[in-house]
Amino acid sequence: MMKRMIQFVTAVFICLISLNLYGEDLKLSDETEDCLGCHSELHPGLVSSWQASRHSRVSPAQGLTKPDLERRVSSPDTPDELQRVVVGCYECHSLRTEEHSDAFEHNGYRINVIVSSADCATCHSVEAEQYGRNIMAHAYGNLVDNTLYQDFTKVVNNHYTYEKGQLTIGEGDMLTEYESCLYCHGTKVEVKGLVTRDTDYGELEFPDLEGWPNQGVGRINPDGSLGACSSCHTRHSFSIEIARKPSTCSECHKGPDVPAYKVYEVSKHGNIYQAKMSDFNFTEVPWRVGTDFTAPTCAACHASLLVSPEGEVIAERTHQYNDRLSWRLFGVPYAHPHPIDANLEKVVNSQGLPLAVELNGEPVAEFVLSKEQQLENNNRMKAVCLTCHSTQWVENHFKRLDNTIHTTNRMTYQATKILSDIWAGGFEKGLPQGENIFDEQTERMWTTIWLFYANSSRFASAMAGGGDYAVFANGRYQTTEQLRKLLDQLKLYRALEEKEEVEK
Amino acid sequence: MMKRMIQFVTAVFICLISLNLYGEDLKLSDETEDCLGCHSELHPGLVSSWQASRHSRVSPAQGLTKPDLERRVSSPDTPDELQRVVVGCYECHSLRTEEHSDAFEHNGYRINVIVSSADCATCHSVEAEQYGRNIMAHAYGNLVDNTLYQDFTKVVNNHYTYEKGQLTIGEGDMLTEYESCLYCHGTKVEVKGLVTRDTDYGELEFPDLEGWPNQGVGRINPDGSLGACSSCHTRHSFSIEIARKPSTCSECHKGPDVPAYKVYEVSKHGNIYQAKMSDFNFTEVPWRVGTDFTAPTCAACHASLLVSPEGEVIAERTHQYNDRLSWRLFGVPYAHPHPIDANLEKVVNSQGLPLAVELNGEPVAEFVLSKEQQLENNNRMKAVCLTCHSTQWVENHFKRLDNTIHTTNRMTYQATKILSDIWAGGFEKGLPQGENIFDEQTERMWTTIWLFYANSSRFASAMAGGGDYAVFANGRYQTTEQLRKLLDQLKLYRALEEKEEVEK
Amino acid sequence: MMKRMIQFVTAVFICLISLNLYGEDLKLSDETEDCLGCHSELHPGLVSSWQASRHSRVSPAQGLTKPDLERRVSSPDTPDELQRVVVGCYECHSLRTEEHSDAFEHNGYRINVIVSSADCATCHSVEAEQYGRNIMAHAYGNLVDNTLYQDFTKVVNNHYTYEKGQLTIGEGDMLTEYESCLYCHGTKVEVKGLVTRDTDYGELEFPDLEGWPNQGVGRINPDGSLGACSSCHTRHSFSIEIARKPSTCSECHKGPDVPAYKVYEVSKHGNIYQAKMSDFNFTEVPWRVGTDFTAPTCAACHASLLVSPEGEVIAERTHQYNDRLSWRLFGVPYAHPHPIDANLEKVVNSQGLPLAVELNGEPVAEFVLSKEQQLENNNRMKAVCLTCHSTQWVENHFKRLDNTIHTTNRMTYQATKILSDIWAGGFEKGLPQGENIFDEQTERMWTTIWLFYANSSRFASAMAGGGDYAVFANGRYQTTEQLRKLLDQLKLYRALEEKEEVEK
Repeated sequence: MMKRMIQFVTAVFICLISLNLYGEDLKLSDETEDCLGCHSELHPGLVSSWQASRHSRVSPAQGLTKPDLERRVSSPDTPDELQRVVVGCYECHSLRTEEHSDAFEHNGYRINVIVSSADCATCHSVEAEQYGRNIMAHAYGNLVDNTLYQDFTKVVNNHYTYEKGQLTIGEGDMLTEYESCLYCHGTKVEVKGLVTRDTDYGELEFPDLEGWPNQGVGRINPDGSLGACSSCHTRHSFSIEIARKPSTCSECHKGPDVPAYKVYEVSKHGNIYQAKMSDFNFTEVPWRVGTDFTAPTCAACHASLLVSPEGEVIAERTHQYNDRLSWRLFGVPYAHPHPIDANLEKVVNSQGLPLAVELNGEPVAEFVLSKEQQLENNNRMKAVCLTCHSTQWVENHFKRLDNTIHTTNRMTYQATKILSDIWAGGFEKGLPQGENIFDEQTERMWTTIWLFYANSSRFASAMAGGGDYAVFANGRYQTTEQLRKLLDQLKLYRALEEKEEVEK
Repeated sequence: MMKRMIQFVTAVFICLISLNLYGEDLKLSDETEDCLGCHSELHPGLVSSWQASRHSRVSPAQGLTKPDLERRVSSPDTPDELQRVVVGCYECHSLRTEEHSDAFEHNGYRINVIVSSADCATCHSVEAEQYGRNIMAHAYGNLVDNTLYQDFTKVVNNHYTYEKGQLTIGEGDMLTEYESCLYCHGTKVEVKGLVTRDTDYGELEFPDLEGWPNQGVGRINPDGSLGACSSCHTRHSFSIEIARKPSTCSECHKGPDVPAYKVYEVSKHGNIYQAKMSDFNFTEVPWRVGTDFTAPTCAACHASLLVSPEGEVIAERTHQYNDRLSWRLFGVPYAHPHPIDANLEKVVNSQGLPLAVELNGEPVAEFVLSKEQQLENNNRMKAVCLTCHSTQWVENHFKRLDNTIHTTNRMTYQATKILSDIWAGGFEKGLPQGENIFDEQTERMWTTIWLFYANSSRFASAMAGGGDYAVFANGRYQTTEQLRKLLDQLKLYRALEEKEEVEK
Repeated sequence: MMKRMIQFVTAVFICLISLNLYGEDLKLSDETEDCLGCHSELHPGLVSSWQASRHSRVSPAQGLTKPDLERRVSSPDTPDELQRVVVGCYECHSLRTEEHSDAFEHNGYRINVIVSSADCATCHSVEAEQYGRNIMAHAYGNLVDNTLYQDFTKVVNNHYTYEKGQLTIGEGDMLTEYESCLYCHGTKVEVKGLVTRDTDYGELEFPDLEGWPNQGVGRINPDGSLGACSSCHTRHSFSIEIARKPSTCSECHKGPDVPAYKVYEVSKHGNIYQAKMSDFNFTEVPWRVGTDFTAPTCAACHASLLVSPEGEVIAERTHQYNDRLSWRLFGVPYAHPHPIDANLEKVVNSQGLPLAVELNGEPVAEFVLSKEQQLENNNRMKAVCLTCHSTQWVENHFKRLDNTIHTTNRMTYQATKILSDIWAGGFEKGLPQGENIFDEQTERMWTTIWLFYANSSRFASAMAGGGDYAVFANGRYQTTEQLRKLLDQLKLYRALEEKEEVEK
């Protein structure tokens, strides 16, 4: 009876905690109350998300009282003025305004439109610092400053004109870039000036932003910082629950170039997640394997602080995801050991191309992890696997992945050799002539092999999602078919060669 | 203590409401009790769906007592005999039998097999009337009566025969039509006669229906009315919850021609929905932004009556979805301002083709919304966006969409010009010869550009689902590749031309 | 107050039930306690799954006390030593060690790494026996021993080398096979020897397994038995809930060759499932139509014991899924009546090919169900349909399926005739020369027609998921386009013929 009574009291206590009735600490700042005065009515959806968030219920001071493993506030200390109020509108939007080119006067306050990763670092400095070393933080520059990518996006996104039997590629436009490659990679958000708008509250001035809206992972913020935390910790709940659920990652990791989420969906992990997620606890920190979940999501393997049911640390939290990755599976054009530096601007191969591999697939040693570093990263990942699987299971799994990286790279190399013969024959005007290597039909056939098919096979292997994505869904079936078609195209060019020359 | 007591009483009251124990009003009609006598046993799945529905718990009279915004019964008054009983089998299946060619005698009652949109209008007249102006209600005729569609479906769905080196296209069959285009567009349900069946209750006669089963949006019902409400308000729960969930729309809006649901899945809206839907309230009327949901579903943007948490109307309920749409994104073959009239039978361009655009992409002004009307519709949509997003966010979003409509249409136009040169060269027998413009290889390549690729880019843009569907998943990557292939095909024909002529 | 007390007591009682505190019966065996001593810490994810499972809470003796329809233990009696303890680690991993080549000494116990279908049969003999007659149990041999499959996988999975203008196909490797075809079909798990590993508990010996990990449906276990029950009853919860949810089937039934899950997702059944699954009961045995669910999942139609709300049996449980299937929709290369024998090793057609059909689509009568047997199987399926749908609905549905089987087979036949002309012209070196019929470009075009496109149309038809998968998503649109391209390829070969001969 005593035990039952204790259970009951505990239950009531948990209710009270969840209702957050602990008293005087919990107050809004006057500034945030001012914001809410108008915005509750103007933006009820946004405000409701925030109201349901932890930010609306906890002050940084409370956050700092948590035991180490449970703490979500990683900065050793936070500014005094933030300590005793919940994290409201003003607390985030008023930070570091002197650094923000998007700062502006708004109803007597100086605030920023965009809360940047550097602003979030006020309370979450460790995560921000880790993320700075994450290749995702550099997704804008790694794309936009790479000359091969420039050739590629030109061919894919620019205007085409057909006239007199010829297709010419014209200018690109930023509006298209913003919703294609830069949607995920991030835009550069810049202030073009101020704009005056007629609002329910009279005429008001706002910064006029280029590249906005955007929540890409490598967004260049108006304070110069990199990355949008809201890519995963979706506005305005900034919820760990959303970030831990795989649908969030699917926003940028589902397409044919990087079908990680599709593979997850047909993996055992994904199946169990689909069937049992309503029994999982997605908010607990640290995240307890077995107690909180029995099948990993993307975050569990790549990011989260995981502990055993007894609270022993299995994997440290990291926002530098390659901490647990030994390979860069996404082939450009070959999969290779993960780059050492997240900023790829210095990467160059022996031919002068901005790639961490040679055109025969050999990695350029100075830019990629050594075998020892790969082992170290892989061991961090294996620690996660081993909470459910035997050593043999895990070792054999990674043997298959190594084999798949080898065999898919080898296939890409065969395609590259065929393409070289096509170039050598002068049938298409590509690299040897110093021109764009993505604009001809056979060049696209080659691109599709490594960008879609080899990647699919590799993600299927890495995530034990075998079956379709390894073979029939943009996998080996398509790779080998495309290789044959590429060769047939070479043969066709040869067969037509004389005739074409005559016509010229 | 007082407060806690009030909470408790409120909770009990809510329970009672949800259990619907208000007394004498709630009774089944004698006729429906008769129906259930057999059908509870015969069709337990169907009957259980109905039992879990609001229809089984509420009478029209009760429905009419609700305040305006909460009312689901929109007809000013409903027939007396329906007022005091819940909405059961007989109440729906016995309506307007004199109009129904599928009416028949069944155990002493005259009933219809199919409950039509005109029957539903008995209680839901406003929705039925709005839906009649929805292009979806006309999906059958707009397809079947359009000569270009006829050419298209002939090429796609009919029998082919290969003999002596030639492929000939033979007859079509309705069974194939019913499960392909007409699955979504709706069939014409007609009574072929009566058929006698041996049942557990002896020999019984039933109408023998052609085109049944079907729940397509533009179904022609046996009473001549258009549309199946059960397309979205799925039988036999007819639930607003199901209609508001995006998986319902996915039934017809997921394929490569119209990948709206796929785009939603990888959009921020879709991500939040996936992660938080179990916290949303899908049954409340009106639907409160923020309180009931924090990320929109298809219905939220296109159909539902939305109010602020304080009950102020943000968007009126509409079953004419183009009320909030300014463009017809789905290109035939170009995206253009939304048609004025939902019934497209009079639409014709300057070449006599049944299209609201010229072949260069110019809309035919008389059949489509003016700029002013587009603005009006767009403002209704923006009112929804603005409940969570700033004016600048929303304006920039729609600027991108305008740009995408322009650039994708432009790409379709380049493809059309290449195809024209192919036709002009006599390489394929298409439009100039007055033949089917969908039957040759290059004609299909052209079709795929606007039907799959341009549409994908546009839906990605419209729903801020960027990334993959804008580029790699049937997006710009495929558009530009296909354009190049189309041109190469023209060059191949030219190269082979002399030889072919010699052979002939 | 009284009522509140009753509610409280009820709540506590439910808690106690769910915690399963019914007394002395429920104990772990000493051996399992020993296992858990280490493995709770080593494999918390795995152990938690088991702890949440029915196995951890019920002994076989308890299971046997259930009324017939509720019983999950189908073996008439189970070994004495298992009767009074819950089904823990040792109870499953120690079974039939003398048959297991993977048995080994582990901390004083002789156990097996892999629990085989024959081990599960200890308690679930009826299901194991049925599954042995399921074509899925024979998925390994039916694939690996079929010479046409061997040709196919060689072309798809093996190493390619490009040299001097030629592509040659080299060796295959088992690591690739394990994660491609055999991922779903199952591997042959064999013991290569013993391996010593340094563990937290000192040096230990383990069997070194080839073909592991794998949960394919036709896995050859180290005791010689066929099949992995864990394919669907996922480790270590072995849950009926997971097996009944369609995401589980999606692991192997979602790819372009067999898009059953994709079709389900866009079907009315799938829509209702998506919207209402949280209201369904997935654990009840027997499974009550209407009461437990109002839209079927894969299991409901193909496997589960279904009863009416009143408990009348609608469909017997079966683990031989073709019990309710009259056709093998998956065309190799034509859809045909379901094979009689699940083991296909004797199947051969009049040309000596290991197929149950001739190359013109005619089934080989001796290996496939007769019309009468098809009718019998179909009637078992229809009994399920009829719990929600009228006789006419169901009859018309299956008429459409019959038509689709006929028309898609007919399309495959036209493609086969074109390919024959290509072979006859000597343009590609295929079957007539006794070589691989999958290695040339046009052979792949032909393969894709029946393997992807015809299958998609058929699954769309069978599962009433019409619309996209019937037409635009690898359906009739692609079938007819491919047929035209195949013919154009033949014409191109002819046009180039003279030139090619000259070059040789």
